[in-house]
Amino acid sequence: MRVDGRLNDQLRDIQVVTEFTKHPEGSVLITVGDTKVICNASVEKKVPPFMRGEGKGWITAEYAMLPRATDQRNIRESSKGKVSGRTMEIQRLIGRSLRSVIDLNKIGERTIWVDCDVIQADGGTRTASITGAFIAVALACGKLLQDELIEEMPIKHYLAATSVGVTEQGESILDLCYEEDSTAAVDMNIVMTDEQEFVELQGTGEEATFSPAQLSEMIELATKGIQELFSIQKESLGDIAEQIQS
Amino acid sequence: MRVDGRLNDQLRDIQVVTEFTKHPEGSVLITVGDTKVICNASVEKKVPPFMRGEGKGWITAEYAMLPRATDQRNIRESSKGKVSGRTMEIQRLIGRSLRSVIDLNKIGERTIWVDCDVIQADGGTRTASITGAFIAVALACGKLLQDELIEEMPIKHYLAATSVGVTEQGESILDLCYEEDSTAAVDMNIVMTDEQEFVELQGTGEEATFSPAQLSEMIELATKGIQELFSIQKESLGDIAEQIQS
Amino acid sequence: MRVDGRLNDQLRDIQVVTEFTKHPEGSVLITVGDTKVICNASVEKKVPPFMRGEGKGWITAEYAMLPRATDQRNIRESSKGKVSGRTMEIQRLIGRSLRSVIDLNKIGERTIWVDCDVIQADGGTRTASITGAFIAVALACGKLLQDELIEEMPIKHYLAATSVGVTEQGESILDLCYEEDSTAAVDMNIVMTDEQEFVELQGTGEEATFSPAQLSEMIELATKGIQELFSIQKESLGDIAEQIQS
Amino acid sequence: MRVDGRLNDQLRDIQVVTEFTKHPEGSVLITVGDTKVICNASVEKKVPPFMRGEGKGWITAEYAMLPRATDQRNIRESSKGKVSGRTMEIQRLIGRSLRSVIDLNKIGERTIWVDCDVIQADGGTRTASITGAFIAVALACGKLLQDELIEEMPIKHYLAATSVGVTEQGESILDLCYEEDSTAAVDMNIVMTDEQEFVELQGTGEEATFSPAQLSEMIELATKGIQELFSIQKESLGDIAEQIQS
Amino acid sequence: MRVDGRLNDQLRDIQVVTEFTKHPEGSVLITVGDTKVICNASVEKKVPPFMRGEGKGWITAEYAMLPRATDQRNIRESSKGKVSGRTMEIQRLIGRSLRSVIDLNKIGERTIWVDCDVIQADGGTRTASITGAFIAVALACGKLLQDELIEEMPIKHYLAATSVGVTEQGESILDLCYEEDSTAAVDMNIVMTDEQEFVELQGTGEEATFSPAQLSEMIELATKGIQELFSIQKESLGDIAEQIQS
Amino acid sequence: MRVDGRLNDQLRDIQVVTEFTKHPEGSVLITVGDTKVICNASVEKKVPPFMRGEGKGWITAEYAMLPRATDQRNIRESSKGKVSGRTMEIQRLIGRSLRSVIDLNKIGERTIWVDCDVIQADGGTRTASITGAFIAVALACGKLLQDELIEEMPIKHYLAATSVGVTEQGESILDLCYEEDSTAAVDMNIVMTDEQEFVELQGTGEEATFSPAQLSEMIELATKGIQELFSIQKESLGDIAEQIQS
Repeated sequence: MRVDGRLNDQLRDIQVVTEFTKHPEGSVLITVGDTKVICNASVEKKVPPFMRGEGKGWITAEYAMLPRATDQRNIRESSKGKVSGRTMEIQRLIGRSLRSVIDLNKIGERTIWVDCDVIQADGGTRTASITGAFIAVALACGKLLQDELIEEMPIKHYLAATSVGVTEQGESILDLCYEEDSTAAVDMNIVMTDEQEFVELQGTGEEATFSPAQLSEMIELATKGIQELFSIQKESLGDIAEQIQS
Repeated sequence: MRVDGRLNDQLRDIQVVTEFTKHPEGSVLITVGDTKVICNASVEKKVPPFMRGEGKGWITAEYAMLPRATDQRNIRESSKGKVSGRTMEIQRLIGRSLRSVIDLNKIGERTIWVDCDVIQADGGTRTASITGAFIAVALACGKLLQDELIEEMPIKHYLAATSVGVTEQGESILDLCYEEDSTAAVDMNIVMTDEQEFVELQGTGEEATFSPAQLSEMIELATKGIQELFSIQKESLGDIAEQIQS
Repeated sequence: MRVDGRLNDQLRDIQVVTEFTKHPEGSVLITVGDTKVICNASVEKKVPPFMRGEGKGWITAEYAMLPRATDQRNIRESSKGKVSGRTMEIQRLIGRSLRSVIDLNKIGERTIWVDCDVIQADGGTRTASITGAFIAVALACGKLLQDELIEEMPIKHYLAATSVGVTEQGESILDLCYEEDSTAAVDMNIVMTDEQEFVELQGTGEEATFSPAQLSEMIELATKGIQELFSIQKESLGDIAEQIQS
Repeated sequence: MRVDGRLNDQLRDIQVVTEFTKHPEGSVLITVGDTKVICNASVEKKVPPFMRGEGKGWITAEYAMLPRATDQRNIRESSKGKVSGRTMEIQRLIGRSLRSVIDLNKIGERTIWVDCDVIQADGGTRTASITGAFIAVALACGKLLQDELIEEMPIKHYLAATSVGVTEQGESILDLCYEEDSTAAVDMNIVMTDEQEFVELQGTGEEATFSPAQLSEMIELATKGIQELFSIQKESLGDIAEQIQS
Repeated sequence: MRVDGRLNDQLRDIQVVTEFTKHPEGSVLITVGDTKVICNASVEKKVPPFMRGEGKGWITAEYAMLPRATDQRNIRESSKGKVSGRTMEIQRLIGRSLRSVIDLNKIGERTIWVDCDVIQADGGTRTASITGAFIAVALACGKLLQDELIEEMPIKHYLAATSVGVTEQGESILDLCYEEDSTAAVDMNIVMTDEQEFVELQGTGEEATFSPAQLSEMIELATKGIQELFSIQKESLGDIAEQIQS
Repeated sequence: MRVDGRLNDQLRDIQVVTEFTKHPEGSVLITVGDTKVICNASVEKKVPPFMRGEGKGWITAEYAMLPRATDQRNIRESSKGKVSGRTMEIQRLIGRSLRSVIDLNKIGERTIWVDCDVIQADGGTRTASITGAFIAVALACGKLLQDELIEEMPIKHYLAATSVGVTEQGESILDLCYEEDSTAAVDMNIVMTDEQEFVELQGTGEEATFSPAQLSEMIELATKGIQELFSIQKESLGDIAEQIQS
């Protein structure tokens, strides 16, 4: 029995609010249990220097937490004057994942900045960020299409992410909350497309290891959970969902 | 006639959501027109080194904006590796204002960290931060009292802030939105207590100056607006409002 | 009776040495009581990137203290690797104040850098910096005129600043020295033009508040003191004073 | 046929030089094809502040490249004043991997610093670092045992790492050199113990995705390659190999 | 004939003002031709962590230039966020030189901070800093003696410095001004004691080299010049000069 | 008798490995006793902004130590976020020395980056770096000539460096190892050309001074040692040695 009464293969409750703030081209508040992330997609009419003149676009992500998103207050990275290794790892992961399902040639010489700001954290912030960021980017692309700034929907596939893990008792579980995550023997983040292919797979056992059989179990759980996430994404996208011919 | 149809002495619509996130001792989402700020108060059981052993507490504030809180995306201060002068000015103002109405001797050797994070900006973010931060700190103090960690409510007076200005046409107006602020000849931020005393008064004319008569007019408008803010603060504080014997 | 025997409405002794160092276009050592500031104005033949091609100039200020300008030695900001919030606030104030009385269109695509370096501090360093910086900039503009690099004197008005405050005993006083400043209940910096209009007005009560009546008293004292500063500025400017048709 | 003529399941030539430099408690030069990494293990008689007094040790890793380890010279991270996201990711991975096979209780209140400095890079620098770092740490632990500073060998299992990938033509290959890595559709780093359990598994498809079947193939290749790495590690450790009762 | 009419073995005019600012224990303005440096010595009642408990003191120096000390304005090192290599070299040289003539055991657990701030530069700023810093430190030591905080004068020898060089025409010259320095083939800084021993000798030929014969000539010139500096130092120290039993 | 049994005028054993790593245009491992430095010369087809369009090249050097090059592990400068004063001093010295013997007009608009990375330190790392860097640069220039990218060998003279010192017992010694260096009364680094002219001469006595007679003795020893270094350089350069018509 899990700390919050869920079954091993059960996701937490998920809610998606679109148009959460007024300025971004795509703005989403995603809630996964007690984890809440604002995902904003901003379109800028230029690309980084190393890409200029190629007619291609770029997608990059930034990730941060409000200082009191967690149980204990964390010092702001702006006050420390540098971004932590953990933050860099996460924002590189989000950017790389999004780029794998978007045809950068179809967005022209534009950069889509995706800002994932965690306002409340209870485990799984990076996977919630990816799932929410996909919706924000889809909304922004929908807006570019509607404004006739681009000709085709650049999104090739749906993309979502979740975490899976192995408890100290050896049980494989889906979508870990913070309490589960901090005691788990193994922790794995999986990013998949709606073709059931992997984009990223990162499994770690800090003070433990995991067997090929445990790996299979975790992948199975994640695959099931991510299917549910795709349904939620489609619903929240409304008309735009139809433009994505995955 | 103002851009949003308000009278010269009219505040924008204001909403306050308390317990906005679950971790902080006091958590508030304050909405002033299209400006939205999350104000979180966190209590830490220690004080800065220079104050240790004095039996007194400390209150300090930090302020930030989400990158896309504004019409154009701003680079994160954590990515730039340093906090801008504007940010420092604002967070010093918020902290100083709060300390003026709180008896630091009554909170023991604790630091109250106040984080003001602007998620949507439309002018007046620093004054909305002060007004919302006061509520968050009052909630945190109420919690300390309820948990019997302190003996008396340390808050001496209500505190709220608003902006006033002079338009290019020479009219004095209350509570400027972004469009008004960016074209105003004079801009003034006023922080007051419910005894109608000033805590801070900062008037600036970048490409203009202002006369003593204009100063008087602006002060009158601000005084009126801040009275309304006190009513809103009291209402949102519920039972805790009664503990503040201003 | 004040610590140095002055009347409540009395400025400290003020001296201005022009051409203090040989390289700057305008170089001033201003002494206000025991506060001594070197104010250097440097003219550079370019403007910041965001202003290029507009045919307009820019004025910006930097402020620093020698490590032992104060009673206790301070760590250099260059050694700490960052500029403090206090320094940023002051240099933004100086720059903004100067820009309010100078017609940037009349200096062409030039930047005037104003460096205010406090070599001895005894309170009022930011207001002494503004008063001295005005003279340095006027000297630099005079030199541009004389060298026929510009056609008209770009200075629209005289500009000077002083501090006023309220003592713990409730008395309003003019031009606070360090000892007065550190015990004052209220501290206010006022920047005015010779048309008796305000450019900046920043009043603060860290552990106190102030009433509208006290505000009026302080403004009256400051207005009187600043008139005296204009006389001193005019005298030190000599021939150039006549070119400023305020 | 691979660019360097290897079979798909063939590792590059590997050499290990122990006692490469004289100061470190464990010093190794590992050569994997044209990739050369100096792995030094240094023992320090203290632990980070958050661990003091627990009687437990700590292992941490740092990773860097000489500026001209690569075909084009890279700017030093010390000159840039900050460590890149890539570097942080790699050093966190190395440290985490080593900690998974070492009993920190058996090294006492000591920190083992592992420095992996790439002097020549041709792909697979992070996995070569892990494989070499394990040997360096084992040597350092052997020295602690020999000097009777610890009582038991703290190493629980052998640990080694390699990369696997999928080529653009869809073939799974083992131990990618730089040319292969830069054109691969999928890239995966796998860290395993000699019990054939996973410690880390990080698979990425930046502009591609991969199927469960491809995942299985890659894991099989990696498992085979890592067995060979264990033989090389044992041989280079000599007598110390016998003390590791995995 | 030199640019300013001096003979090859002639120093520039030198003036020393003591008690230049009021706070430091030793405060000097030294003028060497058009080079002007404020040298302040501050006594602090503690030593760096690595020296605590040894009953010994420490002397350290910092060096900076006002932005417009030179013909073209330089960016402040505090704005750049880091201290240049040139500044570090100079401040290490000043500190090392002073420590060579002061018995650190005789100043107790105190740090003497020496701040050399160049307010006007015309070549030879580092050697003027050393010559002036010696006087400032001697004044501070005199004050410690007078206040009976130390028992004996800790200064073992007089210390002064000058520059010498070889012109493009091959002539050896003493005490180079900026114009000479920027065209010289060889530039050498020499720090000596009044026993005519060397403390530091740093000769450099960026686009030239120098022979042993030229080295001898330069040393002879420097030795002569430094004797004159000792006389000026003694005169400016007054009574304190008698306490230095070199 | 010296700690390692050498005569006072005897260099340590020296070995030079060329083509140490495969990527750089010139790559050298120089071993001087137990000091080992990798010296890599990289040719880049551009010059710093201030030199563009002059048809001239530039040579610059960087210096670093592996963290465990020394007996105690040092924190990486990249982790500290800044380069130490000692490192800056050394890299400025190496760059300046190399530029004195190379005709920058003959390398075209190219920058030669010289990276000196100490992998094992036992005193004399900066002089070993200079001696090794000269060989690396000569190899790189030889390659430019061979590839017909330049027309003439740009190297005007051989360049090498060594250290000399005075022991506590007053003996002058050549090529100090770490143990000698840390107890020496005087330490001097000398950089010379094969015409027996000085390029740099830096003598320092931190807690001692040195007489003109001791200076002469040290120069004599250095001159003798540097002749031997030129022979070793010529031998290691092979055919390229003949192209240098010093």
